[in-house]
Amino acid sequence: MHGLHLTADLRDCRCATAWLTDAEQVGSACVEAARTAGLHVVGQLFHEFPATPEGPGGVTAAVLLAESHLCVHTWPERCCVTLDVYVCNFGGDHSAKAAAVLETLEALFMPGAVHRNALERGEVAAAAESR
Amino acid sequence: MHGLHLTADLRDCRCATAWLTDAEQVGSACVEAARTAGLHVVGQLFHEFPATPEGPGGVTAAVLLAESHLCVHTWPERCCVTLDVYVCNFGGDHSAKAAAVLETLEALFMPGAVHRNALERGEVAAAAESR
Repeated sequence: MHGLHLTADLRDCRCATAWLTDAEQVGSACVEAARTAGLHVVGQLFHEFPATPEGPGGVTAAVLLAESHLCVHTWPERCCVTLDVYVCNFGGDHSAKAAAVLETLEALFMPGAVHRNALERGEVAAAAESR
Repeated sequence: MHGLHLTADLRDCRCATAWLTDAEQVGSACVEAARTAGLHVVGQLFHEFPATPEGPGGVTAAVLLAESHLCVHTWPERCCVTLDVYVCNFGGDHSAKAAAVLETLEALFMPGAVHRNALERGEVAAAAESR
């Protein structure tokens, strides 16, 4: 199954603290970003971690898509966030939709620096492997 | 936040069909693999897709970890599976645990071919970026 898995690792996030600590807020934004991009949400699960002596706890938001999934992790004590948007291309090429979701989510966190990666998964990777 | 994101894309899976279609079975195996490896499960969400004219529907299993997440997608009509195991190294290096989970899950699906990738995320990647 050919697909595209985009990741972005965000540092120096200057967003309001709630974007790093409020799982419902982050998760709802993920769902909205996916739907706006034309992806199909089939499940959602959000988790808030407890505070530690270092500061407030982070959040994880996972959204299951008909096209695969997206996932956000935050570390408020370090102002870091990681984003995953993975789409399989079953029934069409969803790469542009994945890029749109990633761009929307990145903007919410107002990062000072971003490291991105794009991994082609499935059949294309397998073809490369057999060369 | 430095971390390690392992992926494996499996083809020609020769496992029993239930491993490709039964979300509860796949999800329970994910939870057990994570716990056995010493990772900490904080949430789980499993989804079964409806059958299509091509055959039975696949499943998605997402397990949220204190250390990040793991995710499985199956495509029974193509005998394909993709696996993600992402661990952040907050509080210790969990790389070996991630590798153990991936190995356990791969074996369940009895793939004829596997394409793996290991992506270092967060601080190390950021350091590479600034060189």
